[in-house]
Amino acid sequence: MSTIDCRACAGDWPPAEALIGDCGPANAYLHSDQFLPGWTLLVLKRHATELWQLHRDERHALIDAVAQLAGALAEVYEARKMNYELLGNELPHIHWHLVPRRADDPAPRRPVWTHAHEPRILSPGDQRARIGAIRARLKR
Amino acid sequence: MSTIDCRACAGDWPPAEALIGDCGPANAYLHSDQFLPGWTLLVLKRHATELWQLHRDERHALIDAVAQLAGALAEVYEARKMNYELLGNELPHIHWHLVPRRADDPAPRRPVWTHAHEPRILSPGDQRARIGAIRARLKR
Repeated sequence: MSTIDCRACAGDWPPAEALIGDCGPANAYLHSDQFLPGWTLLVLKRHATELWQLHRDERHALIDAVAQLAGALAEVYEARKMNYELLGNELPHIHWHLVPRRADDPAPRRPVWTHAHEPRILSPGDQRARIGAIRARLKR
Repeated sequence: MSTIDCRACAGDWPPAEALIGDCGPANAYLHSDQFLPGWTLLVLKRHATELWQLHRDERHALIDAVAQLAGALAEVYEARKMNYELLGNELPHIHWHLVPRRADDPAPRRPVWTHAHEPRILSPGDQRARIGAIRARLKR
């Protein structure tokens, strides 16, 4: 897949209204399914598909952004554990799934993908409020 | 969980015979289930549970080790994509699942956790051969 047919590079995904903010080499977006509250995506700004393809400094900046954002999400959503996943099976453009696992998690010992559920899509107002809470914590 | 009741710190997991090698701040082990060939674990040598708890230099060395090992696994197992997962839902001691996704993957667009299967446990000889192939590539 080149940048030409990559939905992330084309700006088709994630939706602009889900943007949390600029995190150096990547942008953070609230995931469209908020069944697990605070599920966030961190999407590399340029097209690359594997960690070894990044310049060393770029990889370091990316993992620092992952760590900082995960720490913020853990605090805002009172996570007992954070999950960090870089998969790219459907869309290989580098993006991390950062998922707070809370005390009320329906399957706390299992990966998030094993728990079948209806996606929870927030209203525009609720989405803005959730993004605002994360932004406020990142600015501290 | 402290280091006292952590199975990774106690040396109870992963088994010593699965060791691939020393990767700086972490050790690499072949995963006991080889249903997806080349599934490897990268386990931090000290006890920590979240990426933001690491020193900056330690985090950089860890993600460099992840990238180097993933690149080696992708080559040995002819992966079309690598999956990188840091979960810790069952055992919070930092460990990465590095999973080659090959052309013959049974569910290539899905996370590995969604494909129910009987674990494939290798014979001791087959396990040693697989570890040897990864070690040889890492030494190049």
